[in-house]
Amino acid sequence: MRRSLEETTNMPSDDEEQTPLRYKRSEDFNEWYNEVVERANLCDKRYPVKGLNIWTAYGWKAMQAIDALIRKEMADTGHGEVCFPLLVPEDQFKKEADHIKGFSDEVYWVTRAGGNDLDVKLLLRPTSETAMYPIFSLWVRSHADLPLKIFQIVNAFRFDTKQTRAFIRMREFHFFEAHTCHADFEDAERQIQEDLQIMYRLARSLCLSCLLLKRPEWDKFPGAYYSLAADALMPDGRTLQIGTIHQYRDNFAKAYDVRYEAEGGEHRHVHQTTYGMSERLLGAVVGMHGDDNGVLLPPAIAPVQVVVVPILAKDSKEPVIAEADAVTRELQKAGIRARLDIRDIRPGAKYYHWEMRGVPLRLEIGPRDMKEGKVVLVRRDNRQKAFVPRASMMPEVRRILDLMAMELLARSAAILEKGIRDIATLDEEPATGVLRAGWCGEAACGHELEDRLGVKLLGTLYEKAPFHGKCVVCAKDTAEQAYLARTY
Amino acid sequence: MRRSLEETTNMPSDDEEQTPLRYKRSEDFNEWYNEVVERANLCDKRYPVKGLNIWTAYGWKAMQAIDALIRKEMADTGHGEVCFPLLVPEDQFKKEADHIKGFSDEVYWVTRAGGNDLDVKLLLRPTSETAMYPIFSLWVRSHADLPLKIFQIVNAFRFDTKQTRAFIRMREFHFFEAHTCHADFEDAERQIQEDLQIMYRLARSLCLSCLLLKRPEWDKFPGAYYSLAADALMPDGRTLQIGTIHQYRDNFAKAYDVRYEAEGGEHRHVHQTTYGMSERLLGAVVGMHGDDNGVLLPPAIAPVQVVVVPILAKDSKEPVIAEADAVTRELQKAGIRARLDIRDIRPGAKYYHWEMRGVPLRLEIGPRDMKEGKVVLVRRDNRQKAFVPRASMMPEVRRILDLMAMELLARSAAILEKGIRDIATLDEEPATGVLRAGWCGEAACGHELEDRLGVKLLGTLYEKAPFHGKCVVCAKDTAEQAYLARTY
Repeated sequence: MRRSLEETTNMPSDDEEQTPLRYKRSEDFNEWYNEVVERANLCDKRYPVKGLNIWTAYGWKAMQAIDALIRKEMADTGHGEVCFPLLVPEDQFKKEADHIKGFSDEVYWVTRAGGNDLDVKLLLRPTSETAMYPIFSLWVRSHADLPLKIFQIVNAFRFDTKQTRAFIRMREFHFFEAHTCHADFEDAERQIQEDLQIMYRLARSLCLSCLLLKRPEWDKFPGAYYSLAADALMPDGRTLQIGTIHQYRDNFAKAYDVRYEAEGGEHRHVHQTTYGMSERLLGAVVGMHGDDNGVLLPPAIAPVQVVVVPILAKDSKEPVIAEADAVTRELQKAGIRARLDIRDIRPGAKYYHWEMRGVPLRLEIGPRDMKEGKVVLVRRDNRQKAFVPRASMMPEVRRILDLMAMELLARSAAILEKGIRDIATLDEEPATGVLRAGWCGEAACGHELEDRLGVKLLGTLYEKAPFHGKCVVCAKDTAEQAYLARTY
Repeated sequence: MRRSLEETTNMPSDDEEQTPLRYKRSEDFNEWYNEVVERANLCDKRYPVKGLNIWTAYGWKAMQAIDALIRKEMADTGHGEVCFPLLVPEDQFKKEADHIKGFSDEVYWVTRAGGNDLDVKLLLRPTSETAMYPIFSLWVRSHADLPLKIFQIVNAFRFDTKQTRAFIRMREFHFFEAHTCHADFEDAERQIQEDLQIMYRLARSLCLSCLLLKRPEWDKFPGAYYSLAADALMPDGRTLQIGTIHQYRDNFAKAYDVRYEAEGGEHRHVHQTTYGMSERLLGAVVGMHGDDNGVLLPPAIAPVQVVVVPILAKDSKEPVIAEADAVTRELQKAGIRARLDIRDIRPGAKYYHWEMRGVPLRLEIGPRDMKEGKVVLVRRDNRQKAFVPRASMMPEVRRILDLMAMELLARSAAILEKGIRDIATLDEEPATGVLRAGWCGEAACGHELEDRLGVKLLGTLYEKAPFHGKCVVCAKDTAEQAYLARTY
């Protein structure tokens, strides 16, 4: 029988893949991650340019499911989807001084085309402020044009010299960026609030708990007034930034002359915000929910939510396959992404195959189940089995998928909760997880914290919890706590 | 009132746009096209790099609707969607001799990154054969892996020195490419048949009639064994290539060593096909269906299929708006992309606005209509009005949208039919439309045809009509007819 698509578009073959993962998640998270993204068929890392991976059909489906969640949020909040060119002319890029400083070491330059050197060099967008804002100055003319809310989902490029890692640190990466223009600072602040709500809802759909932090001054986005970020704590104790939200005030608007005529007739610069995410969302899902048997994709984004495996006995192949097929169609009709696996291999090999790829729920059906009028449901996360009457299959499938999503989210929240450790002195052991320390807010004390603890200062909680204490470095009274961690 | 999204993301403002188009389609198709794509808010051409346009929210929605039709076809025919890197290393690109010859004058080169010259130069994909096929040689190992059927929808780049034109000739363009591998030539031929059926169905959805031609030897895709193309006849008498399907045989497989182990154990090169389309599909729609009042988007891809315009009298604003709102929701619930326009401007300005943007159907509702229990439906193509009982609104909306699509397709077919002219000598007037001439198939005669008639030889019908005649140049007996035209 012809192999299913998921297999033909990536290694390894079925024969190879029944060997377990070489690395265990609990023992070597790093190597486990690097191995599992390919074994789960999410990407192929054999493209011969460093930092550029291939999206397999299966991985791309998962990413597109995440994009669909994002697009839904954007539509619900009145953002229009646009698509700007990839190439930015050098002169336009150089208009915003901080921004160019922040990215100039990371850009790819197109210098030749059609056999000739270009008069004006072009760079591949690392992000699109400098591509968009000269055009915003044409689009925005009057207060009636505001707020302007747009986004795009595109490929972007950063020549990062650190070690690359699938979905987490790539030189070409799948990028979401929302850009908004507002009449004043207050309206831009309201946009930040809306973005935070979107970030919460998205993280919840991916069963990810995360910290929403205000980055310290020295780590904000180049050109921003302030930067917020969502950090997820990976099981190895390092944090992964999965989304950023920036308040630009009128910094860029001044550089690119984005002005509007107010109701009174005077011309004012707009206030701007951006919101960025990337394929890191998928990387965080892999890191958070996977185990020694493969990845686990939350129901909201799993390309296959339920895999149906018929258990065949010699004398009853046909009726069981027919019933498994009927079950699959029934699930599909109800909007469940179900898939029937009737390959001519042992059921155990199929279990292995789909567990590796993170299908959240397996439905088994054999001759005895048919006789007894039931099906067997097996959860990917804890392998719990449920024997379910055929008649209540649909509600049970839904219930278990929902329950699993909730429990995955709760587990992620518990990891984060347990992973935060309060420290009172600088003489702590090497950091694992998130450290929390009283901090006066001064850069000098912040850097001291980073240097002495060997971690990065992620920032302070955006929605502050009440705190009264002292700066761990200078012992000044403070209401601020710094969050610190080793990061990806 | 805050302007709707379509307006804020592009010029011109409402005040400006009530001026009619400067160019008439019938008088100056070229200038009309260039003007209408912006006035209809499909793109913004003010990006400061030649050949790179901006997709507005409205234009991008239309393009995404086309992509959705393509994705549906791909899913139905078992193609998996992948995403390969944009950047191709120079050495890999140079492996297929014909291919590099065909594209080497058109590529953009990335030569620097992160402040340094690159050791291996990278090019922006003009198409992805050379990015994909080295990986195909890893993906394909045995006959069980075949056929391999994948596609991607990405941005691609060609440094074209001809005059650029929105959607039709851009240096960065939105690109669809399907790539398949087969065990033998015959199975690749079956794939070509499948692609042709897809091309027919897509063109029909876009209400486009087109010729399916086999390109002459000297105009086939670089590296192909033969090339087929779908050509649409634009109203100005020039043809526009909107899709190409290529049989590669094992040309690329030999260059990139894509082999499989056959059932007998021997190793064989695969046979490959590709199928390419682009944003030209939208360009063809604009050119074919637009008129002096703007564009006309076929129902299958119109971002707004029905615009609801309440006709307000002084004393009955609220109930009419409430009813218009109810009507809009009812349409939306039934899956129609409906939109309510309650801006505080005259109905005439709204008609103008939505006609320019090509909304196929307008629904008007005023106090008298409400009293009489009806709504008014106005077609975009011929402005025919239908007074429809409120109770039968839904089926009538569907019926009229379907009817309009059929009539648009029929009109396109009639234009093509009437546009083909048989010629018997080389002493014809300057060409307009498609010329058809007996042709022996020899390149010398083909070039003579092109030179003497000032047209391009597009090829011969893929599905041949019976013909017995003589070559117009050498007078040899032939069963072939060449199709010739001026092209975009």
